[in-house]
Amino acid sequence: MGGSPLPSGVGGGDGLAPVTAADVAALVNGRLVGNPDIEIVGVAPLDRAAPHELSFLAHPRYAGWFAASRAGVVLVSPAFEALADGPTTRVIVEQPMDALVSILARFHRPAARPGGIHPTAVVAASARVGEGVTLEPYAVVEAGAELGAGCWIGAHAVVGAGSVLGRDVRLYAHAVVYPGAELGDRVVLHAGAQVGREGFGFVPSATGVVRIPHVGRCVLESDVEIGANSCVDRGSVDDTVIGMGTKIDSLVQIAHNVRIGRFCFIASQAGIAGSTRIADGVRIGGQVGLSGHLSIGPGATVAAQAGVFGDIPGGETWSGYPARPHKEQLRAQAAVFRLAKLIRPLEQLLSRREDGQGP
Amino acid sequence: MGGSPLPSGVGGGDGLAPVTAADVAALVNGRLVGNPDIEIVGVAPLDRAAPHELSFLAHPRYAGWFAASRAGVVLVSPAFEALADGPTTRVIVEQPMDALVSILARFHRPAARPGGIHPTAVVAASARVGEGVTLEPYAVVEAGAELGAGCWIGAHAVVGAGSVLGRDVRLYAHAVVYPGAELGDRVVLHAGAQVGREGFGFVPSATGVVRIPHVGRCVLESDVEIGANSCVDRGSVDDTVIGMGTKIDSLVQIAHNVRIGRFCFIASQAGIAGSTRIADGVRIGGQVGLSGHLSIGPGATVAAQAGVFGDIPGGETWSGYPARPHKEQLRAQAAVFRLAKLIRPLEQLLSRREDGQGP
Amino acid sequence: MGGSPLPSGVGGGDGLAPVTAADVAALVNGRLVGNPDIEIVGVAPLDRAAPHELSFLAHPRYAGWFAASRAGVVLVSPAFEALADGPTTRVIVEQPMDALVSILARFHRPAARPGGIHPTAVVAASARVGEGVTLEPYAVVEAGAELGAGCWIGAHAVVGAGSVLGRDVRLYAHAVVYPGAELGDRVVLHAGAQVGREGFGFVPSATGVVRIPHVGRCVLESDVEIGANSCVDRGSVDDTVIGMGTKIDSLVQIAHNVRIGRFCFIASQAGIAGSTRIADGVRIGGQVGLSGHLSIGPGATVAAQAGVFGDIPGGETWSGYPARPHKEQLRAQAAVFRLAKLIRPLEQLLSRREDGQGP
Repeated sequence: MGGSPLPSGVGGGDGLAPVTAADVAALVNGRLVGNPDIEIVGVAPLDRAAPHELSFLAHPRYAGWFAASRAGVVLVSPAFEALADGPTTRVIVEQPMDALVSILARFHRPAARPGGIHPTAVVAASARVGEGVTLEPYAVVEAGAELGAGCWIGAHAVVGAGSVLGRDVRLYAHAVVYPGAELGDRVVLHAGAQVGREGFGFVPSATGVVRIPHVGRCVLESDVEIGANSCVDRGSVDDTVIGMGTKIDSLVQIAHNVRIGRFCFIASQAGIAGSTRIADGVRIGGQVGLSGHLSIGPGATVAAQAGVFGDIPGGETWSGYPARPHKEQLRAQAAVFRLAKLIRPLEQLLSRREDGQGP
Repeated sequence: MGGSPLPSGVGGGDGLAPVTAADVAALVNGRLVGNPDIEIVGVAPLDRAAPHELSFLAHPRYAGWFAASRAGVVLVSPAFEALADGPTTRVIVEQPMDALVSILARFHRPAARPGGIHPTAVVAASARVGEGVTLEPYAVVEAGAELGAGCWIGAHAVVGAGSVLGRDVRLYAHAVVYPGAELGDRVVLHAGAQVGREGFGFVPSATGVVRIPHVGRCVLESDVEIGANSCVDRGSVDDTVIGMGTKIDSLVQIAHNVRIGRFCFIASQAGIAGSTRIADGVRIGGQVGLSGHLSIGPGATVAAQAGVFGDIPGGETWSGYPARPHKEQLRAQAAVFRLAKLIRPLEQLLSRREDGQGP
Repeated sequence: MGGSPLPSGVGGGDGLAPVTAADVAALVNGRLVGNPDIEIVGVAPLDRAAPHELSFLAHPRYAGWFAASRAGVVLVSPAFEALADGPTTRVIVEQPMDALVSILARFHRPAARPGGIHPTAVVAASARVGEGVTLEPYAVVEAGAELGAGCWIGAHAVVGAGSVLGRDVRLYAHAVVYPGAELGDRVVLHAGAQVGREGFGFVPSATGVVRIPHVGRCVLESDVEIGANSCVDRGSVDDTVIGMGTKIDSLVQIAHNVRIGRFCFIASQAGIAGSTRIADGVRIGGQVGLSGHLSIGPGATVAAQAGVFGDIPGGETWSGYPARPHKEQLRAQAAVFRLAKLIRPLEQLLSRREDGQGP
């Protein structure tokens, strides 16, 4: 690193108030071994944790790091309770990583929020800005846009003309809301997310192709989160709607007229083509592609990298290309790899039969 | 939604002047059933259309929405002409969605264009800016750049040093033209598109790896459109060229030295590796990957998610991984799924033959 | 093009000082045929090279372009030495493209660097900015951030609160460093790259799902390069670390807690899920997906579009979905395409056996 003067644990992970090893054990319902009075002010991985920091060991892969760790307290699973080397103050729990996640908030200092409207923010005269809104440097709020109370708009983010944002919406730096989009309360757009552009629709014309005018809306319901550099198109003849509480990761593409239900999870680099409908509680893995005009039932799961060209019933798990029910896909894949050894004798067998040479 | 006060149809879909149901029927060559005098001022999907809005029903999947719809007029296919429930003023056409698209422009109010050069735009003294150019807040035009008449540069967009834009080029918010790129007339870059950066080329050196200097250009011919957050590299030893009228969707990667012909369509999240040549009229599906130094013939189609590692002749449709002619691919996929049931008896049969146990 | 007045070779490729054909031959260890005194001031592809420019011909595919080229000097492989048509001054080398790359720097004029801090740049009072730093228009440096000497921060780029950049870091326009990230010396972030955001991690709560607080860091070691619109998450319970000299292309996603070794190459649109560990010298092809918690050994290669769901040993090349050792994958693919012709006779054979009809 280029001469970084940053102490370990800074960068979001420094503690707010010390917590003792005994406190940690109580918070996670674990069993303490070692010194109950060690004070912890932050969390760090084994290889950089300092004596005032908490870490965890959940997998034998990291036993070497554990042996050399300077962590003050370590959450460990029962299998590692008696390891000879490594930190001696240990909290034994069945699932160390889950335990750590459950208390992370104790050690997390949220980013400081600058107050008010930066003098470089450009706000159109016809825009309506609610109480307690933060506009960071160079934020732009176009004509007729509305921002609910408590919105926090990052540097260079753009709120397009006529768009409507609910309360406490968070746009990170460089997020772009195209004109006319609607965002519910507590929606989060990460850096570079683009929401509400006209989708990829063209029709032939006398002079080549022309864009289909997009008259549908782009609606993100409350508590939706859109990852960095992801794109959500507005509708052409229908609306594009993302349901309440749905979380979308980075570099995802949601095409025009797509409707996604509530509390879905869509992992990075997935793409959903036009007019596909996704019910509530669907989980979509990374790099999945769904073609257009499909219907994905409630609670379905689509495994990473699947290519989906047909409807998926609710509750099922599908995978592969072309996507099939996961168990069927696994059987087919296994058969292919077993086939490789058999293909030549099979060809010989069948060609002998054709030749009348038996068997 | 977070208390959105936005009336239905606003956000791009509100009408310019009322059109009667009889007018709609005439415009789409359809047959009117019901009240010819209902006035329509906008378009909306069945589930949110108001009595002054036009909608459409093309698939039985949405019959429930139709039954409950408040739409004033609905375009329906002949199969739905006699549905008991739902709006009673109907225009019967063979392809309701196509009919709707054909008249959307009647109901589309384009985004209002702000005039002139915003005082916060930064324009280098040596840049040349044509007549009627719009520069939105915080647009940056670097040294020596040239903008043809009528260009519209969105908020925070950057026109790099020495780049040249034709007439009526549209950069949406946050689009970036790297130094030295050339864009023809009416080129559109959506938000976050990055055009003309140095590509991913490195060569070994005494001190590790060094970047290959990129001396090739990045040329987008007239009427090219680049989707949100897509990336087009400049050439290293050749130019990167995208031909006239070619349309590219969101999150697409075009590597250095790629040459794409005229009037191609490239869907979201496709990636094209270095030095590949694509002829005119090629259609490339979503998430397709083309490796480098390939040649794709005129009018070829590459189906979604295909992984292409060899040339594709003109006019053919290829799919799958590794990509093959589509019919061949379908046959192979079908064989695999039929194989899963046969693999164990096949193994038994062949192992008995090896053992001399027959058949 | 829209009336571009740009002369050939401008846009980054114009020469700095003339070089004669004899000089070129000496520089690349080639054999000169033709006029040794022709002066070259730039490099261009065959189809647009002018009489004062150098080009190359490496593949018979471009023989037609060679025949019509106006290039002053052309690097050709021995097979093309005696071509009847085309430029007559030729330098014969075994690998013309490699030869060209080796001397490109002679013809490359790096982009001019504006000096100092643009008056529109916003720098927090608590930020520390080293000597010789360039801040382009509308760059934002937040509270407590540190920039080493010689950093060059492009237009609209954002350096988040508390982040630390080493010496000579280059952020292109619109790159975003989230709060608390650490970048070593000479790190390059291309336009739209997003580094250090909180990753995609949620846990159930009484009121739906809540974000896992991310207390891990995002560390890019010296000489790392991140492509346009790529995203690197910060760690949740561990750090996200990208090792020295690793180069990452456009539209790549690196999730939380991922650790990547030194001198790796990761091609465009690849995605790496949470907590995966990648050793030194690994090469990952375009559109590859790696699922979470994997281990990829030193020097391994993952072929384009592979879907990796298990560990890969060092030094091996894997490909396909699900990824397997490359040779095994090729055998399986070949077997599948041979199977398509055999599946029906195989089914008939096995069904006859079941029926007791032999053989």
